[in-house]
Order: sequence, then structure tokens, then C-alpha cells
Amino acid sequence: MEFYQITEVVRRALREDLSLGDVTTTGLIPRDLRGCGTIIANEEGLLAGIDVACEVFRQIDPVLTFQPHLSDGTHLTPKRLIATVKGRLCSILSSERVALNFLQHLSGIATLTAQYVAAVADTKACILDTRKTIPGLRHLAKYAVAVGGGKNHRICLGDGVLIKENHIIACNKLGMELPEIIKQMKRKAPHTLRVEIEVRTVTEAGKAAAAGADIILLDNMSLEEMEEAVTVVAERALLEASGGITRENIRAVAETGVDLISIGALTHSAKALDISLDVN
Amino acid sequence: MEFYQITEVVRRALREDLSLGDVTTTGLIPRDLRGCGTIIANEEGLLAGIDVACEVFRQIDPVLTFQPHLSDGTHLTPKRLIATVKGRLCSILSSERVALNFLQHLSGIATLTAQYVAAVADTKACILDTRKTIPGLRHLAKYAVAVGGGKNHRICLGDGVLIKENHIIACNKLGMELPEIIKQMKRKAPHTLRVEIEVRTVTEAGKAAAAGADIILLDNMSLEEMEEAVTVVAERALLEASGGITRENIRAVAETGVDLISIGALTHSAKALDISLDVN
Amino acid sequence: MEFYQITEVVRRALREDLSLGDVTTTGLIPRDLRGCGTIIANEEGLLAGIDVACEVFRQIDPVLTFQPHLSDGTHLTPKRLIATVKGRLCSILSSERVALNFLQHLSGIATLTAQYVAAVADTKACILDTRKTIPGLRHLAKYAVAVGGGKNHRICLGDGVLIKENHIIACNKLGMELPEIIKQMKRKAPHTLRVEIEVRTVTEAGKAAAAGADIILLDNMSLEEMEEAVTVVAERALLEASGGITRENIRAVAETGVDLISIGALTHSAKALDISLDVN
Amino acid sequence: MEFYQITEVVRRALREDLSLGDVTTTGLIPRDLRGCGTIIANEEGLLAGIDVACEVFRQIDPVLTFQPHLSDGTHLTPKRLIATVKGRLCSILSSERVALNFLQHLSGIATLTAQYVAAVADTKACILDTRKTIPGLRHLAKYAVAVGGGKNHRICLGDGVLIKENHIIACNKLGMELPEIIKQMKRKAPHTLRVEIEVRTVTEAGKAAAAGADIILLDNMSLEEMEEAVTVVAERALLEASGGITRENIRAVAETGVDLISIGALTHSAKALDISLDVN
Amino acid sequence: MEFYQITEVVRRALREDLSLGDVTTTGLIPRDLRGCGTIIANEEGLLAGIDVACEVFRQIDPVLTFQPHLSDGTHLTPKRLIATVKGRLCSILSSERVALNFLQHLSGIATLTAQYVAAVADTKACILDTRKTIPGLRHLAKYAVAVGGGKNHRICLGDGVLIKENHIIACNKLGMELPEIIKQMKRKAPHTLRVEIEVRTVTEAGKAAAAGADIILLDNMSLEEMEEAVTVVAERALLEASGGITRENIRAVAETGVDLISIGALTHSAKALDISLDVN
Amino acid sequence: MEFYQITEVVRRALREDLSLGDVTTTGLIPRDLRGCGTIIANEEGLLAGIDVACEVFRQIDPVLTFQPHLSDGTHLTPKRLIATVKGRLCSILSSERVALNFLQHLSGIATLTAQYVAAVADTKACILDTRKTIPGLRHLAKYAVAVGGGKNHRICLGDGVLIKENHIIACNKLGMELPEIIKQMKRKAPHTLRVEIEVRTVTEAGKAAAAGADIILLDNMSLEEMEEAVTVVAERALLEASGGITRENIRAVAETGVDLISIGALTHSAKALDISLDVN
Repeated sequence: MEFYQITEVVRRALREDLSLGDVTTTGLIPRDLRGCGTIIANEEGLLAGIDVACEVFRQIDPVLTFQPHLSDGTHLTPKRLIATVKGRLCSILSSERVALNFLQHLSGIATLTAQYVAAVADTKACILDTRKTIPGLRHLAKYAVAVGGGKNHRICLGDGVLIKENHIIACNKLGMELPEIIKQMKRKAPHTLRVEIEVRTVTEAGKAAAAGADIILLDNMSLEEMEEAVTVVAERALLEASGGITRENIRAVAETGVDLISIGALTHSAKALDISLDVN
Repeated sequence: MEFYQITEVVRRALREDLSLGDVTTTGLIPRDLRGCGTIIANEEGLLAGIDVACEVFRQIDPVLTFQPHLSDGTHLTPKRLIATVKGRLCSILSSERVALNFLQHLSGIATLTAQYVAAVADTKACILDTRKTIPGLRHLAKYAVAVGGGKNHRICLGDGVLIKENHIIACNKLGMELPEIIKQMKRKAPHTLRVEIEVRTVTEAGKAAAAGADIILLDNMSLEEMEEAVTVVAERALLEASGGITRENIRAVAETGVDLISIGALTHSAKALDISLDVN
Repeated sequence: MEFYQITEVVRRALREDLSLGDVTTTGLIPRDLRGCGTIIANEEGLLAGIDVACEVFRQIDPVLTFQPHLSDGTHLTPKRLIATVKGRLCSILSSERVALNFLQHLSGIATLTAQYVAAVADTKACILDTRKTIPGLRHLAKYAVAVGGGKNHRICLGDGVLIKENHIIACNKLGMELPEIIKQMKRKAPHTLRVEIEVRTVTEAGKAAAAGADIILLDNMSLEEMEEAVTVVAERALLEASGGITRENIRAVAETGVDLISIGALTHSAKALDISLDVN
Repeated sequence: MEFYQITEVVRRALREDLSLGDVTTTGLIPRDLRGCGTIIANEEGLLAGIDVACEVFRQIDPVLTFQPHLSDGTHLTPKRLIATVKGRLCSILSSERVALNFLQHLSGIATLTAQYVAAVADTKACILDTRKTIPGLRHLAKYAVAVGGGKNHRICLGDGVLIKENHIIACNKLGMELPEIIKQMKRKAPHTLRVEIEVRTVTEAGKAAAAGADIILLDNMSLEEMEEAVTVVAERALLEASGGITRENIRAVAETGVDLISIGALTHSAKALDISLDVN
Repeated sequence: MEFYQITEVVRRALREDLSLGDVTTTGLIPRDLRGCGTIIANEEGLLAGIDVACEVFRQIDPVLTFQPHLSDGTHLTPKRLIATVKGRLCSILSSERVALNFLQHLSGIATLTAQYVAAVADTKACILDTRKTIPGLRHLAKYAVAVGGGKNHRICLGDGVLIKENHIIACNKLGMELPEIIKQMKRKAPHTLRVEIEVRTVTEAGKAAAAGADIILLDNMSLEEMEEAVTVVAERALLEASGGITRENIRAVAETGVDLISIGALTHSAKALDISLDVN
Repeated sequence: MEFYQITEVVRRALREDLSLGDVTTTGLIPRDLRGCGTIIANEEGLLAGIDVACEVFRQIDPVLTFQPHLSDGTHLTPKRLIATVKGRLCSILSSERVALNFLQHLSGIATLTAQYVAAVADTKACILDTRKTIPGLRHLAKYAVAVGGGKNHRICLGDGVLIKENHIIACNKLGMELPEIIKQMKRKAPHTLRVEIEVRTVTEAGKAAAAGADIILLDNMSLEEMEEAVTVVAERALLEASGGITRENIRAVAETGVDLISIGALTHSAKALDISLDVN
């Protein structure tokens, strides 16, 4: 998470909340009243987004002093002190909600990711995110996945090749079959990118491997099919399991021998982690 | 949802996904190959965001024809056809993920809201959202809450006065007590805004009503306390229940006689609704 | 006036003036020549915008030192020293006009407001601005009104409900009359907002109060009508006088007993206050 | 006024007014109710900004039909119909204020300019604006001056050379006197630009002309001094009168024989022209 | 080249040229004078950027009709007609320079690329661009390379892994040697990306291949060294020649058997192609 | 080159290169590893853009210390040390390419300009750039021309009047001939701007001078024609030679006695200067 990736997203969030000013704080709190706010966890989870929270306070009031006590990736427990911010109370009060919104959402993603990562411990499988992110927050969301121990799948449509079912249907219309599709893609893709393809059956997985696919996405397969695919592909390509993954079945999926397991829910359905700010 | 509120948020989402182009589609699909995509629900819920999806396709390729078959607020069931988009297949394929990301997230919020709204049917309580939104999507998220039958709390720090616990603590430092705080706020606030205050006890609720608060937020009270507050305040102010609301207890909360129930989870923890696009 | 509300408006103003550079200064003044500029009032009035002027100099050259000698709201008299700026002369010369444009316009608004405020001294009436602002400067203009002792009416179409004549005409087409209009609005409006309605006659004012309007705008009424409206409404709603207010008649308007007097001229027709910068 | 110069300034103005939506209109007016608005002059003056008003309606709702009945520069009288806009009433109501704010401000500038222009009729003097514009609206303001029959002075610090008193003071510190200053500027300035210099006395005007100044600004001179300067300079340079110009003395100033008269008030102190929109 | 990648870069270019308007055209050409402009090649080369030119005219005046007669990639010869644009002459004249600036620069890149591509005809080597692009135009520049028959190397630092000399020096400080560096990178990189490393000697090339590098960049090697590297690596990795490539030696480089030849000059030093617009 | 002109262009360039992060550096270099980079010239030329390079490093990582050892305009020779940057190695590595892209391009322009300037030494001719710049970099490119000793022609269509062949053709359609065109332009142009016109023959040059043109552009004339034009015009206007200028013939062009020689190639076809960054 480099700071130049945070500036703009924070500015946008502040504009949403403060474009008309903060009438409550302005009406009650004298500008020179100073104080302190403490950011505290209210439930168990993994911290993510501390630099983003810092940037929120900095943009509102550059002379606030923000002191993080924990760094991203730290395990949180109820009442644990995350950070302290000192300075003009009016600035702290006006920043609170936006700072917490970032922290709660990103920590929620990190926490969910860590649960899946723990579930596959001691297997060779890596947990991957997807492009199913909440619009406008992709970089931050993928960062939070990494904090949770997951690995990032491609960030956008340009840093990875993934031939999906819909591409294959379109190519079929042109009379192209799987091997030919893969070969054309390998010829056309930038040489820096591997070629991944989505398949529905073990037979297709075998054909894809034979045609030179670097990575094969096994879409919504049963555990048996996945195991079979692992055998058939025999390390000629990386195997990514996708679709229908739950915290209940993920261990079994990992034990089929697949290399990667991608989960849309990490970024599209993570619950916010409960974190609050207390003025004192 | 006016179109001028959608343009920018869609542009931002497309920039996230397409700033390097779409290498897979470019490598496989000829630019003049035409086709059709159908957007289909995969689970039960409430549709929200159809205009946003439309704008995604329009920004990618203005000559695509997007035909919505359902409007926002429609009840979805698995396999129900939501919309059809026709034109260059490459454009449809490059737009798919971003369009679905909006639809899935907003429909998820609308669906969750509708569940809470249903739970309080035939009581006088309204379901409210909060400012606990995912940064960058506040307007869309609040729109989705409205689609789900909820009512919007203030959009930002400028269109509503809400004196929270932290404000009160800060004012206490200055020697101001509840009645005085409310009076100063009424004097200072724009005359177009009502004054709302957060209280922790029934006694405070009574004092707040006496001091002229227009709305009183009952923070994390038990059902008994809420009932008592309703009696004590006796319609001198609107009462908003907040904190610890679940789908399990919300009916009972509504039956205490409060006017409003606000729920952060509507916008910070809604699960994405499963919606997909099939090329054919 | 928080600094995050100033940055962008200043950047825009500088882009207008300096996008091609400053050919005169560049051609004459060596970059390392240092000096001092003093900002001085040339006529009587009220100062507003000192932080904006400071930001202008800061954006042009962050190492200039800007020393304000007066703060916003100070009474100015000819020759009074407002601020001093020291550093590279070329930077001071290139900043001069934009800094003065802000100071002169905002001080002009504050000065005009203060004259109206003085005219109603010792009555209960507050002076209000309107949304009749010069496009692009609304936040600064409303800030200047506050500096001049005025109160801000709603900032935009979202932080206040005001049912105007045109809304009523449109509703009449639908068969809705005044009481029904007010009732629907109270039901639909966010609970944080009061409901204000514009009326043309005393009879309408009475109906509006009876229907529960929180604020009633008396449009272009005679002094006699206003007095009558005050009697009829009898504190059931706030009363706002609007239309045809001049410095000549405002005292009489205030003495009718209205609560608020709104004046478009404060922000759309204020004369610039004469302020200049002298290099030495 | 090209349309690509209007788009951004209109977007900004709409963002100021509509970023939270229009709660009143949304609460009262059904989206499919259609109607008509007429834009009407309420006082005498000169129309300016009709294309800007058109763009406001277009950005709010591209399917509104906006029909201008008059073009910029037309003389307005009370009750004169300026334009008609038809379509969804909710869109018309939400656009009204911003469209009028542009029309009123720009027509105000054009009207004031036309008064000065009329005052110098049949003399050779042209009326000029200055860089004393309200920040963010310079291009529109200068356009309105041209509509009023004025001529535009430089738009920014890059399309004209004007050596002002402050530049001269700075150069004096370096031991440079008037002739040397002018010569250096002529050498350094882009060859496409004339060189203008501000002088305080007739003697300086003579020196400036001798040193090759293309234009000489006579700052705050008496009528006698201006006449003398006209004689002394003897058409070797254009003469611009500036400072202390009022509608009372401008005719006399023009009759001294100066070529140009520049007036800051055109753009910094014009009163808004009274224009309104009636729904029907 | 999708249109959503062009809009912003064109807007920026127009802002550079037209932010103060076009004084010459405005002063001479009546707005309703209509006419036609023809865009014509003045020298031999390859056309690139026709859609960008089209967008320039569209942004200036949406009712101009732009008719391309040739498409990107067409071989140009002197006097060949590229496109015709019809409508208001003032719009055509104001657009001319910006449209031509894009066409000339992009066609220059395509032309230079095509010369290198021709030079390696019938070898297996592909011509690649680099990240040595002129700031702000990377996407367009890489598009022009593709038009010229070249292949695009990574677009940014996120869609390809390339361990350069400077990375290796930094890693050496940490005690990491080549094989370890490659292994760590393969572990850390997104699974969608291949790993490329820059080497200086044949020995290093061999080690890199052994350690699993997917692509090896041979930096500034002699023809003999490249040949040797081809033999040593023996198709375990792709080989990219880089550094010191000229039109004179490129054929010999290609004949060493390398897979890829990257040339910074394609995008940082291409001469503009001579193209002009004639009004008639 | 003021810093407020650099910020945005640098931000844009960084967004091009770093919007997905730097996967190589992130994968290999620990964030706390510190080091140093030296920027070094690899060929002879003129340095330009050192402040832009500085801003690149600053935006990536504000705590890097960038130490320039040479200033813009310094003559570079192979191995000459230009600047040193110290701090986090990961930041230096991620900034390298963008910083060099600016330095190489701008130094290339300055170097080419200096060659032309040297070629006309001891004549009265100045070397001018044109508006034939690479889109998005006009201000920087024109700055680099100035560093190389050239003079800037107008920056955009608003800070100079230049009646080109295409304007004359359009005016001819309206029945206007050269003298009338010039006279209308002088009347309409801002008084701060000179009027320049492009001519094709000596006769036209004579007519233009007689009609009061301030500057006459001699388009593609032979040396003999230029000499003749110098005689005919006899200092009544500045003469600018343009078209077909090469390093071979420029001396002869200058010796014809023209005042200005404008060369598009300075900004549209300059080769990048070879500059690199070494980590150590």
C-alpha cells in the first residue's frame, strides 16, 4: 500500500461526508478545544487499513498527531487499542466516521481472508481474491486480502489472461475449439503474462493442459472431479478451484491437490469489523 | 438516482478494471463479432442498480443496446431474466464484471434492507440507514436502501444534526450539560435542520425531550428501556433505536413504539446478491 | 472554513490566471530577488477570506511566509494593514491578483451582510443568505455571510426542504392542495430536515401553519401582511420574509416580528471591497 | 463562447447544488409528470449566458427541450420571454436555480458593460475589462463583457505583458529605471505580445513612449493629465485609462483622447439582473 | 484502442491549446461559415491515430462530420488523402493543430516500428516496445507500436515482472544471489505473471534458466554472446535482446535466434510523420 | 518552470506506470532497505527537467532526499553525475523509469534546440518553437526549448494571433483579401497581442507589411525570396522563416536577415537523450 494509492480514495470519501461541512461539530465545539481520540477494536479479527485511517486524519487536519499502536495484520481482540489521535477535537470528531468506515471494511476483508487461509493451513493451496470487488475500492480491497494472508489474482483485465466460459462461447461461434483458443491466446498475449482458461469438465482440463494452458480454472467442480483433474493435468499447469467455495468445504477442496482457490466473497461480501473511536 | 450522480462513479470503476485494456478479449474476439448477453438472477432478492449497469455498458460502448426487463425494486428469483445487452461481443465481455459488481452489491443492500423492512411490517417504525457506508459509494448505497423500502438518514455531516456521545463528552469538558448542549445546537444549527441527540439512559431521554431535542437516538438500550423512553418522551420528539439490532430482535424493538430504527449493517455488511451474465 | 474546502477552489483560480505562466514577471524579476508585499484596505468594510489568500500564496510558492495581521470579521478602515507576505518577489507578484480577487469578493459579501445585520439590531430577526450565489463559490460565499453576522440558509437542494411556488403549481396540476402538499412532504422528507413552504397570502400562511409546516416563507408581502401573518401563525412555525428587501425597508420588516429575513443580494450583488497589495 | 468552455463550469455548479439530490422535488413531484418552464426578464438589461443555461438543463436531463427565444446581446425589458424549457417537471425544478444564477450574473455583467459602452459612444475609446474577476468564472465573465460591447483585456498572466507599479518598484531595487525596464521586457517577451506599462505621471508616459512601450496605462490620472499624456505620447503608443472610472466621469475620460478605458467593476461588482423561471 | 481510453487524453490536449479560445479564428471567421478540411500525408509511412483525430474534432464540435478514408495501419504515400472533415470552418480551424499533433506523433511511432519489423522479417524475433515512453501518452504510444506490427512489452510496473540490474544490485546487498532472487520472485509474483530477469553474461543466462526464469533479458550483449545464450538456455526460457539495437544491426540480432527484441527508441525517439490539413 | 505547473503532469505519468503497483520491487525489496541512486548522463547534450525528476521522487516518497548536482542548461558529457537520490531503495526503484522518461525527453529537446541556436550564433535570428508539440507536454516542451536557448512562440491559440494559409483561404471565400484580413484582425484582436500573418510570396509579404501586419511568417520560401522579403518589408514588421529548416540550411536562412526561425522538429521529433540511474 503506497501512499500515492491512498490519497485520492481518501479525498473522495471525505468529499462524500464533508462537502457541506460538519454542522454538529461546528455548532458545539470551539475550534481551539484540544483532546484525544482512541481507536479501539470491539470484536476479534485482523487489522487492516491503518495507513488509510492516518491519511483521513491528515487530510482533515495536517497538524493532528496520529499514533498507530498496531500495524496491519495484527490480531485484534475486544478492547484492544489500535491507535491514538491527538489535536483539535473538532477535527477528530469530523474525521471519525470516514476513518472508521475504511478500517471496518478493510479489517473485515482481512479477517474473512484469514479464516479461509487458516482453513487450508498445511496444504499447498493458496487463497486468491477475484475481480468481484466493490467498485472504487479494488486496490484497497486487494491490499486487505494480502494482509489476511491471501494472494492477489489479477487486479484488472490487463495484468492477467483469463479465458472464461463466455469467451469460449464467443469463440465457438467462430468455429474455434479449446486447443485453438489457447494457442491463439498464447500467440496474442503479452509475453509477460501466463494464459489461464476456465473449464467445466475433467476432459476439458486435460485438453487445456495439452494445449499449453499455464493455469486452469476448475469451475464449480465436485471434489471428485477436482481430484481427477489434479491427476490428469499432472503439474503441466497450475490448477485454480473456483465457485461454490465455503468455509465448510474449503479444506476438502484444498486437499484435492489444487494450487489455488479463488473466492469472490472475500471482497464482495465481507462483514465490517466492529471498531470504534472514543473521545477523551 | 439521477444520471448525473452515476456517471463519475461508473467512470472510476471502469478505470479500475480497464486502464490497461482487456488483453483476453482483445486477443480472442474480433471487434466486429456481434452477440448478446443476458443478465440473470441466481438467487432470490431485490433488484437495485439497473441504471448503473446500463451506464457501464454505455460508457464502454455507446452503440450497445441495453434492454432492462425489470426495474429496481423487483423481486428476483433464480433464473429470472433481468436485462439483455446486444452489440459487439468484445464490448459486452469487457463490461461484464463491472456491471455485475454494481448490480450484485446494490441488490445485496436492497435485499437486506427489505428483510428488515418486512420484519417491522404493520408497526410504525421506519428502517433507516447510517453513514457507515463503504467509502466512495455512499449515494448509491443509500439509493439501494430506499429501493429496499428503507428511509435514508442524513447523507453527510451537513444535512442533519446529530449530537453523538463523543460530542457530549467534549462539551462536558467545557462544563456544558445536556440541556445546554441542545439549546446551543438549536441556536447554531441552520433553521432548516432538526436537532437529534444520542442518549444512553431513559433519564437522559427525558431531559433531551424537555430541552427541545427534535429527535432522540436511544443508543444500545434494552427493550424495556426503549418502552420506558417512549412513555417518558411522550411524542415530544421522534425516537430512533440504534445499536445491537438484528433480524431476530428487530420486531420486538419496533413494537416498543420507537419511530425509527437505524442499522449500519445495511450498508457496511450486506452480502452481494448472485447475478451473472451469459453470452449467447 | 476548513482548509480542505479551500484547496480546490484556489487551484482552479490559479489555473485561470497562471496556466500560461506570468510573462511579465518572468521577463523582469530574477527568481532569487526577495522582498515583501503588504496587503492593505483602501476602504471601510469587514475582512473575509484571509485563509483563502494564504492558500493562494502557499500554492504558488510553499516557502513564502504569509503573516496575517487581522482575522476574518475585523472591521477595516482605509490604510489598515491586513497581512504581510515575504519571500521571492516573483512569487508574490504572480499571486497578487488572485489573492486579492478572493479577498475583495469575500470581504464585499461580509461587508454588505454586516450592514443588513446592523440594520436589524435588537430585533429577533436573523439575516439569511440564499442559493442565489455566483456559481463555483457557494461555500466561500456562505462563509463570508457568516463572517458578516448572517446565518446560512440551506447550502444546496439536499440540506433543507423548501416548497416553492413552482412546486405548488406543479402539485396543483396533480390535484394536491396546500395542506396535502405539506403532509406528503413531511412524510417523504428525511426526518432530519424541517419542512419550509413559500406562501403568497396571509390565508395561505395560516393554512400552512395548520398543516404542520415548520417554516413559512412570506414571499413579497407588504409590511401589513407580514404583521398579520405573525399574528395568525402565532409561533406555530418560523416565519421567513423574502423578496423586495432593501437596506431602507429591512428595519421595518424586522419589526413586523418575522424570525428570518433572506436576501439574495448578499451573494449575487455584493460590490468588491477595495483592497490592494504593495510591494516594498 | 465555445461549448467545451462551458461544460466543466456547469458541472461544478451543479455539483454545488445537487450533490445530495433535491429532496423537495423528489418528495413531491412524480418523475413522469411533464410540464413547461418559461424564463422571463424582470428588469431592463442585456441578456448573456443563454448557452450556459441551456447546458445546465442538458446536464441535468438530456431529454429536456430547451428553446431559447432570444440570443445573447438582446435588450431585455420586464416580462420579456427569454426561453422555454419542456419535459419532466422534476428536472426543470431541480435545474432552475443554477440556470438562473448563471443568467443573472452574466446578464448583470453585460448590462453594466453596455452602460459604460453607451457612455463613450462616438468617441474612439474602447471599454476594457480587467483580471479583477470572481474566481472560477473568468472566461464566462469576459464573454459577458464582450456581449455588452466591451473588449477583453488579457485573460491571464500569459497573453499580455503589463508592467505594473509593483514590477517597477521591484526593478528599481535592482537599479533598473523605466527605459531599461521596457527594453528588457521587449527583449524577453514572446514576439507575439505587445508590451504595456503602467505610469503615474505625464513625464513617465513620455519616457515610456520614447523607450518603445506599445501601450501605456495611465493610472489614476486627472483629466488634465490624461489630455497632456495624449499630446505627449502623440500616437507612439496606445493609451489606457484606469482607476477611479465611474459612470459619471467616463465620458470626460473618453474625450481626453485615450484609446482604452479599463474598469474592474465590470466583473467584480456587477449586480445580478433579475430573471426568473415560472412553471406552468 | 477503445474510445474510453482516448477521451481524457484528447480533452487534456485541447485544454493545452484552447483554454483561452482561438483569437485568430474568432476574429476572422464567422461562426456560420461552413467548409471542408482534408487531411493529407506529405511523406511515406504508416497511419496511426485516426480515431484520436476523430475524437479531437468531435470534442470541439459534435456536429462536424469526420470521414476517415483510411484506417490505422495503412501505408501512406505523399498526397494520399487520409480523411475529410466537414462543417463549421471555425471548428475545423481550431481543431487542426491538435488533431495533427496526435496523427503525426502516432504515425511516426508506427512508421518507425514497421521499419524494425520489416528488418526482422522471416526470423522468429518479435519487435517489442519498452516503458521508455513520453509521459502521458503511454497507452497511445503502445497502440501505435502495435499498429506498426510490434508487440507490447508490459504497460506498467504491474503487468509484468522484470528483475533489472538495479534490483539485483539491491538484492545482492541482502546476500541474495541470482537463483535465490528468481525463486523468491516466482513465489511472490501474482500467478498470472511470468518472471523475467535481466542478465549481463552468458553464464548468468544459464543460471537464470536453471533457476526457472520464464524470460531472460540479454542486456547489451554482443552477437556472439547472444548466440551462445540461445544455445545455453536451449528454449527453457524466452530470450529478449535489449540495448544498442539499431536498424543496421537488428537483422543480425534477430538471426542469433532470440525470441524478442526490445527497442526504447520506438516510443522515445520517433520522428513525427508529416501530415497536414488543407481547408477548401 | 514553476512547481505548480509540474505537479499534475507528474501525477499523470506516475498513474500510467504505477496504478497497479510495482510487483517486481514489492516482491524482492524489503521496505526498510535503504540505498542510493545516481543519475548519470550517457551521452553529450544539455540537461533539462531536473525539477520534474525531483517532483517524481517526491510524489512517490516524500522522505527521499533528492540532491541535484547540476542545474538545467548545463552541458552534459558521458558519465557526468546529474543528481543523487537517497532513501528507501524500493521507492527509488519504482520512480526510476518515470523520472528518466522526463529527463531524457526534455534534455533531448533542449539539446536539439541548442544545436540550432549554435548554428545561428552571431546573426540576429532567434530560434522559435511551434505548437507542434506532443500532446499533454506542451508547457514542459516549451520550457525545454527555452533551456536550450530558443524563444517560445505562442503557447496556445489565445496568446498570439497567427493568420495562417487556411484562415486566408476561408476569408477569400468571403471575398476578403489580404489587406482587409489584416485590418479586421487588428481591429478584433485583443490590444495586447501583435498580429502575425503567413505569406507565400514576396509580393504578399510587401502587402502584409503595408497593411500593418506586426509579424510576417515566410512559409517555405527559398533563400533568395527570404532575402528579397527582408528588403521589401524593410523593418516595418518582424520576419519569421518557417518550413523546410534543417541543421544544414539554417545558417543560410539566418543570414538572409530574418528575425525569427521557427522549427516544429524541436518539439515533435527530438531524440531522447541517454540518461540512466544506477543503484548503489
